Amino acid sequence: MAPATIKWSGGIDGWAEIIDQTLLPEEYRIAQIRNIKSMWQAIKTLQVRGAPAIGIAAAYGAVLGLREPAGEAGPEQIKNQLKKSCDYLRTPRPTAVNLFWALARIEKVAAATDAVNAEKFRERILAEAQAICAEDKATCRAIGRQGADLIRQDSSILTHCNAGGLATADYGTALAVMFTAQEQHKRFQVYVDETRPLLQGARLTAWELVHAGIDTTVICDNMAGLLMRQGKIDLVITGADRIAANGDTANKIGTYPLAVLAQAHNIPFYIAAPSSTFDLSLPDGDKIPIEERAKEEIIKPWGKFIAPENVKVYNPAFDITPHQYISAIITERGVIDRPDTQTIRQWFDGGK
Amino acid sequence: MAPATIKWSGGIDGWAEIIDQTLLPEEYRIAQIRNIKSMWQAIKTLQVRGAPAIGIAAAYGAVLGLREPAGEAGPEQIKNQLKKSCDYLRTPRPTAVNLFWALARIEKVAAATDAVNAEKFRERILAEAQAICAEDKATCRAIGRQGADLIRQDSSILTHCNAGGLATADYGTALAVMFTAQEQHKRFQVYVDETRPLLQGARLTAWELVHAGIDTTVICDNMAGLLMRQGKIDLVITGADRIAANGDTANKIGTYPLAVLAQAHNIPFYIAAPSSTFDLSLPDGDKIPIEERAKEEIIKPWGKFIAPENVKVYNPAFDITPHQYISAIITERGVIDRPDTQTIRQWFDGGK
Repeated sequence: MAPATIKWSGGIDGWAEIIDQTLLPEEYRIAQIRNIKSMWQAIKTLQVRGAPAIGIAAAYGAVLGLREPAGEAGPEQIKNQLKKSCDYLRTPRPTAVNLFWALARIEKVAAATDAVNAEKFRERILAEAQAICAEDKATCRAIGRQGADLIRQDSSILTHCNAGGLATADYGTALAVMFTAQEQHKRFQVYVDETRPLLQGARLTAWELVHAGIDTTVICDNMAGLLMRQGKIDLVITGADRIAANGDTANKIGTYPLAVLAQAHNIPFYIAAPSSTFDLSLPDGDKIPIEERAKEEIIKPWGKFIAPENVKVYNPAFDITPHQYISAIITERGVIDRPDTQTIRQWFDGGK
Repeated sequence: MAPATIKWSGGIDGWAEIIDQTLLPEEYRIAQIRNIKSMWQAIKTLQVRGAPAIGIAAAYGAVLGLREPAGEAGPEQIKNQLKKSCDYLRTPRPTAVNLFWALARIEKVAAATDAVNAEKFRERILAEAQAICAEDKATCRAIGRQGADLIRQDSSILTHCNAGGLATADYGTALAVMFTAQEQHKRFQVYVDETRPLLQGARLTAWELVHAGIDTTVICDNMAGLLMRQGKIDLVITGADRIAANGDTANKIGTYPLAVLAQAHNIPFYIAAPSSTFDLSLPDGDKIPIEERAKEEIIKPWGKFIAPENVKVYNPAFDITPHQYISAIITERGVIDRPDTQTIRQWFDGGK
């Protein structure tokens, strides 16, 4: 992943640059995001998506939001403006916790920083956003190292949606494990669920894997059951958008069926995610809010209706996989086997 | 279903008319099929599809195939021509047994019919094709009556692909159960899997149900797991393309995951199919051939690539649901509970 999914360009009066993921794989285009409203839109419309990446995007959005108070704004006004920006940036997507996590980090730094000098305050916020981005890169590399042993020579892996470089600063979470295994000269193949409705698997994951020279096969989401029954899948690895204290995991719609199928076929099912994806304030997955998106995403995918225009549509963007179905969670600080309330608490308490 | 999915128009020099299902729901167009090659194409390209409907289509195709021997063909030539036609019509799609079943019926009648008078022979073959079509209508109504009790007041049903009027002469198999329950003034709702890659659920089933005034919601195939976990599904009903002697059932790709999920959520899973769908020559589902279709169906769905053009694709059109996952099979002659080799043999031996 040479080009960055998201990066800051210039100093405090600079802008964010993102790969416009709605156009891939047909078109590769960098979008310049120059104000907070455009960043909100970019997150909402999935120009930038993936739990870690939207955390970074929100942090840069907060920097952009500080550009607006006119001329001689006082410290209070500047801090108010930051709070308003953060509140606004929390609204486009409800499920991934990384968005809230990154904005909480920004707000914590803001609270601890003097705003008498507006320029210095903005520099400090930008520095924190840059740190979130840089740490994400390091985190993804570490996830790759932690998980790579799970891929054996000639493994056949199934993944869903995109938990790759495009979902993070770069390198990815689930795909980081694969990229690292490839660097270790392991031979393996990957089946990629296309991931309806927005096809992040076919459009983004297949694009990343093919570019990396990994043996990649695209399937429809409903084909994974047959593949497992045919013995064609050795392990499943996906990313996560939010993990509750007991290990229940929200991820892209269609993850839960894969976990149930994997268990029915005695296939290990792994989640790869940075520790910032854990939301220990929620005891279990039932409290994770599930985003519902527009009906047109399903029944008018390319400007043409594929169902009667007046039919009802249900379009949840995520589902919850209960921890009982998860063999292990691969984080940047180690692998949590058989995640549950106890193993996760121990793992966090262990300061690992 | 006022307009016929497939019907014969005119006498022995007539033609078959089908609703071109590749154009729905955007366009409703009747295609006239005037020679055997066009019928082969119509079956291959899914202009006509659904296990019972392609049985009827093949029978009419055999009639069309008899038009070709020139002028004064002798009885042997005519019978050879019929055999050639039937062999040819067995080739476009391998999985649904109804195609083979209908052609076997045609060949049996041909064997028992004198071909000295070519006109009379052709009339006899057409009459048999017409009988197959008429019987299918009666069979579908009977399946509806047999299964309607499984739908209770306020039931919420999940179905996959299209097992409706468009998959049969009319009225359908899985949908027949719903249409009959509606005639019984039951109130219920139906969730319809869109059914990638060719979207028969969104395009065809939703179209039929909305036209019938049934409360219908389209979802992506990967959403069924979440719905079940949310308690939104009371029962699943699908059609079948071939049922082995032990009850293992081939049906549209994505059926098997639904059956596994239904069992994990204690939701009954029903198959609705005419008895002609059983293939007692196969002890179990492992021997059912699974059709693989072109990669473009998945990665170039509307003339636009949704994945890297050079990626590998696996596109099986069917999967096998082991009988352990099937609560019952609804046929025109009764419901087979807990289907297995024994219950199915008893049911057939019982001459029911």
